[in-house]
Amino acid sequence: MTPAAAARAIADAPMEQLGFATLDHQRALRTGVPEVVFGPGKTTSDLVAIASRLYARNGLVLVTRASPEGSEALLRAFPHARRYERSGIVVLRRRRLRLRGRVLVVCAGTSDLPVAEEAAVTAETLGSRVEQVSDVGVAGLHRLLAHRARLRDARVVVVVAGLEGALPSVVGGLVDRPVIAVPTSVGYGAHFGGLAPLLAMLNSCAPGITVVNVNNGFGAGYAAHLVNVGGRAPARRKPKG
Amino acid sequence: MTPAAAARAIADAPMEQLGFATLDHQRALRTGVPEVVFGPGKTTSDLVAIASRLYARNGLVLVTRASPEGSEALLRAFPHARRYERSGIVVLRRRRLRLRGRVLVVCAGTSDLPVAEEAAVTAETLGSRVEQVSDVGVAGLHRLLAHRARLRDARVVVVVAGLEGALPSVVGGLVDRPVIAVPTSVGYGAHFGGLAPLLAMLNSCAPGITVVNVNNGFGAGYAAHLVNVGGRAPARRKPKG
Amino acid sequence: MTPAAAARAIADAPMEQLGFATLDHQRALRTGVPEVVFGPGKTTSDLVAIASRLYARNGLVLVTRASPEGSEALLRAFPHARRYERSGIVVLRRRRLRLRGRVLVVCAGTSDLPVAEEAAVTAETLGSRVEQVSDVGVAGLHRLLAHRARLRDARVVVVVAGLEGALPSVVGGLVDRPVIAVPTSVGYGAHFGGLAPLLAMLNSCAPGITVVNVNNGFGAGYAAHLVNVGGRAPARRKPKG
Amino acid sequence: MTPAAAARAIADAPMEQLGFATLDHQRALRTGVPEVVFGPGKTTSDLVAIASRLYARNGLVLVTRASPEGSEALLRAFPHARRYERSGIVVLRRRRLRLRGRVLVVCAGTSDLPVAEEAAVTAETLGSRVEQVSDVGVAGLHRLLAHRARLRDARVVVVVAGLEGALPSVVGGLVDRPVIAVPTSVGYGAHFGGLAPLLAMLNSCAPGITVVNVNNGFGAGYAAHLVNVGGRAPARRKPKG
Amino acid sequence: MTPAAAARAIADAPMEQLGFATLDHQRALRTGVPEVVFGPGKTTSDLVAIASRLYARNGLVLVTRASPEGSEALLRAFPHARRYERSGIVVLRRRRLRLRGRVLVVCAGTSDLPVAEEAAVTAETLGSRVEQVSDVGVAGLHRLLAHRARLRDARVVVVVAGLEGALPSVVGGLVDRPVIAVPTSVGYGAHFGGLAPLLAMLNSCAPGITVVNVNNGFGAGYAAHLVNVGGRAPARRKPKG
Amino acid sequence: MTPAAAARAIADAPMEQLGFATLDHQRALRTGVPEVVFGPGKTTSDLVAIASRLYARNGLVLVTRASPEGSEALLRAFPHARRYERSGIVVLRRRRLRLRGRVLVVCAGTSDLPVAEEAAVTAETLGSRVEQVSDVGVAGLHRLLAHRARLRDARVVVVVAGLEGALPSVVGGLVDRPVIAVPTSVGYGAHFGGLAPLLAMLNSCAPGITVVNVNNGFGAGYAAHLVNVGGRAPARRKPKG
Amino acid sequence: MTPAAAARAIADAPMEQLGFATLDHQRALRTGVPEVVFGPGKTTSDLVAIASRLYARNGLVLVTRASPEGSEALLRAFPHARRYERSGIVVLRRRRLRLRGRVLVVCAGTSDLPVAEEAAVTAETLGSRVEQVSDVGVAGLHRLLAHRARLRDARVVVVVAGLEGALPSVVGGLVDRPVIAVPTSVGYGAHFGGLAPLLAMLNSCAPGITVVNVNNGFGAGYAAHLVNVGGRAPARRKPKG
Amino acid sequence: MTPAAAARAIADAPMEQLGFATLDHQRALRTGVPEVVFGPGKTTSDLVAIASRLYARNGLVLVTRASPEGSEALLRAFPHARRYERSGIVVLRRRRLRLRGRVLVVCAGTSDLPVAEEAAVTAETLGSRVEQVSDVGVAGLHRLLAHRARLRDARVVVVVAGLEGALPSVVGGLVDRPVIAVPTSVGYGAHFGGLAPLLAMLNSCAPGITVVNVNNGFGAGYAAHLVNVGGRAPARRKPKG
Repeated sequence: MTPAAAARAIADAPMEQLGFATLDHQRALRTGVPEVVFGPGKTTSDLVAIASRLYARNGLVLVTRASPEGSEALLRAFPHARRYERSGIVVLRRRRLRLRGRVLVVCAGTSDLPVAEEAAVTAETLGSRVEQVSDVGVAGLHRLLAHRARLRDARVVVVVAGLEGALPSVVGGLVDRPVIAVPTSVGYGAHFGGLAPLLAMLNSCAPGITVVNVNNGFGAGYAAHLVNVGGRAPARRKPKG
Repeated sequence: MTPAAAARAIADAPMEQLGFATLDHQRALRTGVPEVVFGPGKTTSDLVAIASRLYARNGLVLVTRASPEGSEALLRAFPHARRYERSGIVVLRRRRLRLRGRVLVVCAGTSDLPVAEEAAVTAETLGSRVEQVSDVGVAGLHRLLAHRARLRDARVVVVVAGLEGALPSVVGGLVDRPVIAVPTSVGYGAHFGGLAPLLAMLNSCAPGITVVNVNNGFGAGYAAHLVNVGGRAPARRKPKG
Repeated sequence: MTPAAAARAIADAPMEQLGFATLDHQRALRTGVPEVVFGPGKTTSDLVAIASRLYARNGLVLVTRASPEGSEALLRAFPHARRYERSGIVVLRRRRLRLRGRVLVVCAGTSDLPVAEEAAVTAETLGSRVEQVSDVGVAGLHRLLAHRARLRDARVVVVVAGLEGALPSVVGGLVDRPVIAVPTSVGYGAHFGGLAPLLAMLNSCAPGITVVNVNNGFGAGYAAHLVNVGGRAPARRKPKG
Repeated sequence: MTPAAAARAIADAPMEQLGFATLDHQRALRTGVPEVVFGPGKTTSDLVAIASRLYARNGLVLVTRASPEGSEALLRAFPHARRYERSGIVVLRRRRLRLRGRVLVVCAGTSDLPVAEEAAVTAETLGSRVEQVSDVGVAGLHRLLAHRARLRDARVVVVVAGLEGALPSVVGGLVDRPVIAVPTSVGYGAHFGGLAPLLAMLNSCAPGITVVNVNNGFGAGYAAHLVNVGGRAPARRKPKG
Repeated sequence: MTPAAAARAIADAPMEQLGFATLDHQRALRTGVPEVVFGPGKTTSDLVAIASRLYARNGLVLVTRASPEGSEALLRAFPHARRYERSGIVVLRRRRLRLRGRVLVVCAGTSDLPVAEEAAVTAETLGSRVEQVSDVGVAGLHRLLAHRARLRDARVVVVVAGLEGALPSVVGGLVDRPVIAVPTSVGYGAHFGGLAPLLAMLNSCAPGITVVNVNNGFGAGYAAHLVNVGGRAPARRKPKG
Repeated sequence: MTPAAAARAIADAPMEQLGFATLDHQRALRTGVPEVVFGPGKTTSDLVAIASRLYARNGLVLVTRASPEGSEALLRAFPHARRYERSGIVVLRRRRLRLRGRVLVVCAGTSDLPVAEEAAVTAETLGSRVEQVSDVGVAGLHRLLAHRARLRDARVVVVVAGLEGALPSVVGGLVDRPVIAVPTSVGYGAHFGGLAPLLAMLNSCAPGITVVNVNNGFGAGYAAHLVNVGGRAPARRKPKG
Repeated sequence: MTPAAAARAIADAPMEQLGFATLDHQRALRTGVPEVVFGPGKTTSDLVAIASRLYARNGLVLVTRASPEGSEALLRAFPHARRYERSGIVVLRRRRLRLRGRVLVVCAGTSDLPVAEEAAVTAETLGSRVEQVSDVGVAGLHRLLAHRARLRDARVVVVVAGLEGALPSVVGGLVDRPVIAVPTSVGYGAHFGGLAPLLAMLNSCAPGITVVNVNNGFGAGYAAHLVNVGGRAPARRKPKG
Repeated sequence: MTPAAAARAIADAPMEQLGFATLDHQRALRTGVPEVVFGPGKTTSDLVAIASRLYARNGLVLVTRASPEGSEALLRAFPHARRYERSGIVVLRRRRLRLRGRVLVVCAGTSDLPVAEEAAVTAETLGSRVEQVSDVGVAGLHRLLAHRARLRDARVVVVVAGLEGALPSVVGGLVDRPVIAVPTSVGYGAHFGGLAPLLAMLNSCAPGITVVNVNNGFGAGYAAHLVNVGGRAPARRKPKG
């Protein structure tokens, strides 16, 4: 394909103007996953309108961090939608995907569960088989070692941790799989809202660890899904039918 | 496997005491890749001693950021070693691996080349097929669009950028593959040694992007290799022979 | 003009003491635009009193970030005033200006709209013709490329973006006009309330980009107007009549 | 023009592969100014090679922050090139442009002169008429007031200041022209390498001030030129002949 | 006086244990001013109890940043106390002092008035004659120049400013008196709650400027009083009678 | 003990899965103190369930920073539990320990009392004899010197201070015992929520001072107890009976 | 005096253009002290030229932080000049002033001596009588208490401290005089080049402390002189004769 | 003891004026350990003079971070002094102490050895028995588990780590002894010279961990010694004989 052809493919891509938003319907073709809706800063009616258009087109809508009002409005408009309580994620889909591979989501403490849930629901919604291991922080190593077989069987491991963010380094030393680290804002004082574990994870002594933004369970689940299915998401081909 | 069995496997692992260092020979078994040597802060004689022991055991040694004296000493001791000039990485290996898959390393400017080289050499040394695209920053988009076919063919894309670090977001919007972003320290003033692109990459509007530390080409190449080969590194099984 | 004459011109300038405020009525003469009122931290009665004096003198009042109570009081006192809902800006003017030139205000996401509106209303109130393009973030480049003709026709482009703040660099690579970049606080975690896009914009690889404070749509609209009309604001000469 | 046509125009743009660099020859067409070369991090031979290709194509080369070795090599290769001592900028051009408009570059102290020179040389090289006023910091206001006529005659004012960076606010209160503020790293202690004046300028109480990165005289001069000539640079049309 | 005698004087100093507080009654002897009460974090009953004991002993109580409940309780317990509305400072004193010298408190904008009031009330309560000049920010220099005679007549000038904090530098260039600069938290975005003007004031190009913490009107008024009266506070000798 | 035996001991350790939590019952054996419950981010029912299980197993539960609802639920479920009002710590224990040694908790101001209480209650609950000295900040040295005998008699001193955090340095110069410094968030402006005293304490000129996180009274009390009893906590052996 | 007259006085003030510098000869009239020369960033010939002009006009020149080459050139040009070794300050004066009042400069450690010397020499050069007390950090309080009589006799105290910067708080609690605190860069790690003591001093619990920039002995000495002589500097009237 | 008696004891304490230094000879009486000399910023002759006086008085001198010239001068002046190469610490002592207790110094990587040595030498010089375990970072847990018996036998554990600083949390979960964590500056990029592990250690999920400044092996060794010997240092009583 020549550059001109590539550029043409980009420029002729379908999009839809809603006035307050420009929906990128070509995204699913281009990247394998339809546009995801970031809840904060959108009115209730905006949310429902955007979700309706995306659902009609792709059969799959993921809304992250929906406010209580926003998710109630979505549930009224789409009675078959599902809201996950800890993380506030809302999922609409026309049909369930056949789950593939194996993503393991590990978290250090119970306070990290909302972020872990966001990661797990995202990866599963996109078509990955997901398992979770919770509350296995490094101050009690045997809790993690007890799950060593599950660590070994995953294709990719998402590790969610607040406080000092040490868990990804320990996990990274145990497995031969990609590890995606998610710092959380769980902590206080010199934690600076997640800066402490973020810096820790970026400086990990275990090689091969990559990091996402503080509390970005969605981003970690999305990346983990891409790794798990070998890049190309089945979600792209399935829900179109 | 019970927790006790898992823990036993860990604790009985072979290691070697050099006095100033504790070599983790079991690492290759556990994670698929032997220990890598971080050059800074090690004396010339330490470097050669460590490299000798690791080479004898694993047939593969990777030394990153070797000083000129350090790499000269390594090249004298191991005449078949190879030093890469831009990045200062030194590689010793008993046999070449058959390269698999496809990792694409993209960089925004020519000043980012040392970091891009570190990523490319790391991934290739571990057994991945690697291609590079250079100097395609976002201020001249057509330079990137010209390589769209190569972007599509890679299993994972490493994107290296300094200054504002915008390139990973643009690449992430074009491909359906995992994107690993590497901020570099190329910049000045309010760049704060790489903080600016690091924050940009962590806040990317394109989902699925994961990030490594500033200038950490090694970490990005390592992670990209794990993603490329589906987790388990062939390096583990090959060089043992 | 000698320094002494210049200084005399400054020192004899008209001002008006309100006790809690010192109104700079000479400002319109000196800079072409009357004083603008920053809403936060002023009581309702202060706001109305200041607006009354400025209106009487200049025929044009711009109040930014008015609180709900503040803008209601202004609307009661000046029934012909107009409040813009997203940005909270309130405008009073005796007569409409004939709009000149062309300012284009581009924003990356729907959450950036309040800041974009503040920029657009400011520039238009001062006498510039303004157009807006919304929700064209860099993760879907075709949405921006579709507006290339409008980019080319503007005399100055204001680019509003949160998250990683990459959009100004891409726009700056496409046009031969001054680009004014506005970072927004849209984001979370390592976004640090707009620090991430602020740093990105200050380090842009596209030359000619200048930057204003986080969420400072007013400042960007004001500067864009000055650029658009060749410096001197028509607002100065018109509303005096 | 349709999006597809726009994208085609982008993708068919001429570029030139030098292996270590991808020259964007279309840049002059697209933005009115050819690519500018950032000196740091490039080898002497790279610099000369890049400058040769750009010169052959555009007849105009601007190299910023060239090292002593780099600029000597450039001067050997291009005997008619000119190096400016304070700022280290090197200029090659086939023919002098006819200078237009008026850009005023003001600096607060003698230590800010290198940055002021970079701004002035950049704007003049691109085709703007430039004047300079130096050492007029706010602790001795009469030094600035003595130049009030020149402030009034400029189409755009670049204000360069280190320490507390107060000068742009004072200038912004005196003129009805766009003011571009450049913080410098002149200072110590809690100056943090230019952070103090950068923050001051971003928070200026005088509206219409836009800001560039610390010590970025080049960026300020480039933006000032675009404003001065009404956006489109004459440099684009002239040196092609 | 020998060290031992000095230490004895310290150690035998009177203090009073309230259980939750250790009142330093010797402070007035040692430093010329009785202990001042910082309101935040103290319960209503604590506030009243502490004020009662200090009043009985020193005849002078200053409570800063009292909460609405706290100051109401104080006003009920001490009907002759006075609360200043903008700053929340509460003053109890047995007798008015004869005011001495002259402290000038200048502020840049109306939003800085609460901090300016805290400074003015503190200095006056301790026995200084105080004048105020308000809303004379540097974007309209003539407003400040109109007060030049008052600047010249003061023994010490307190300058309160938010946003970029440029006013102290301009004042410092006009007077031959000590200037005490107070940054305020008035601003947004890259203001970081007062960090921007704090850094600006610490880096002022006008010599002789000293700085206090953000919003610390009390500290500035206290220091200004000490400077104004030549160090030793008359408050110490007067209210004892 | 061989590594394998050590690892077995770790891996066979008892733990209890509550679904949302993994209780580390072996902790008391391993470290001498049972798991402590960090209140924030846990639901009321979670808190009660976790406390019940830990109490049944260890006879000692410490819940820090319980919300009002959380501590009420705990008090309903365990009528003999005790809640400390200032710090919000809740303690359940089957039997009182015989207190040993001597820990002195010193605080600089009354606003630091909540953190000092958290430290004192923690150390006492674990089995240390604790004394407190309050409101002895460095601006009135004689208040501290009056307690010099108690400083000398303690085995370890916890020093709690906000504002500039100078007290640990002064105490550290007076005693020959370990000093544990706790910065608090008491302050404003350039205090940055405790960063100022944290940095001060880390840079203390008095040797032997160690530091915990901002407001971390619990951590300081825990460490002080370990030092006081010579490492091994009696709590471990007592409540098992 | 009317505003117009004030402005005229400013604008007619004498100044001298050196091309690279604009000397503010009116400064001595306006503020009581002639311009001071900040050494860094000026060439040797610039330094000598500026010093010559200032000396001819005012009979007093103070150059701070002169480089070794710069101060040698000054000493060659002005054989009667004096260079102070620790601080690098160079002083030229036509006649010695009669010293007045009393400034006490206290420093915490021997490493702080260069900054203390800069403060002491500045104040003395301007006409203040200065005493120094050195190496009396808070970890050994008796060293400071031994000098209590000198603390009491000073009109103003400059306190210089690195590390945690606690000394000003202790001094401020002992005296009834203005205290000017100077943080130094003496420290390492989490000292961040003086940030730790700077923050500590800004947050001091002792009221009346004002602060200057890190290592700014000059500014502290200048301000102390103004306080010591009651504002107006004798230096202004003396050396003119 | 009354406060007055306590204060007298402080004020009559012996000290020695060296002009540039005030030696605190009473320190050994007051705190059990003589003054320690911080090498940086002291001239060679200062170092020797201070060491001579301290040695004569206390029979024990510890100089940290001596420059090569400084330590050579010390070794010439005191031929029996000992210099430790990695850390640059120099020790002079009249007689060896009988070592007591057991301090364990653990470090994560070979690059952390200089800091670990500083801690070990400090504690041993003061009279503690010290053991070291090196290069046992968390990415290879079995290396640490192999030393579990030694961890259990120590009275206090010093843990030195750079990069992400995770090791103290893992050690803290394994032992029932006080753990003193030392972050090091080993790392790059978003490590910020040790900030990353410093924050991690302050936020550790393992209770009882206290922290010292970056690279402050001396402080950690000093504190560990105080803990190890139960507070009072034998060094105080021994070397006086």
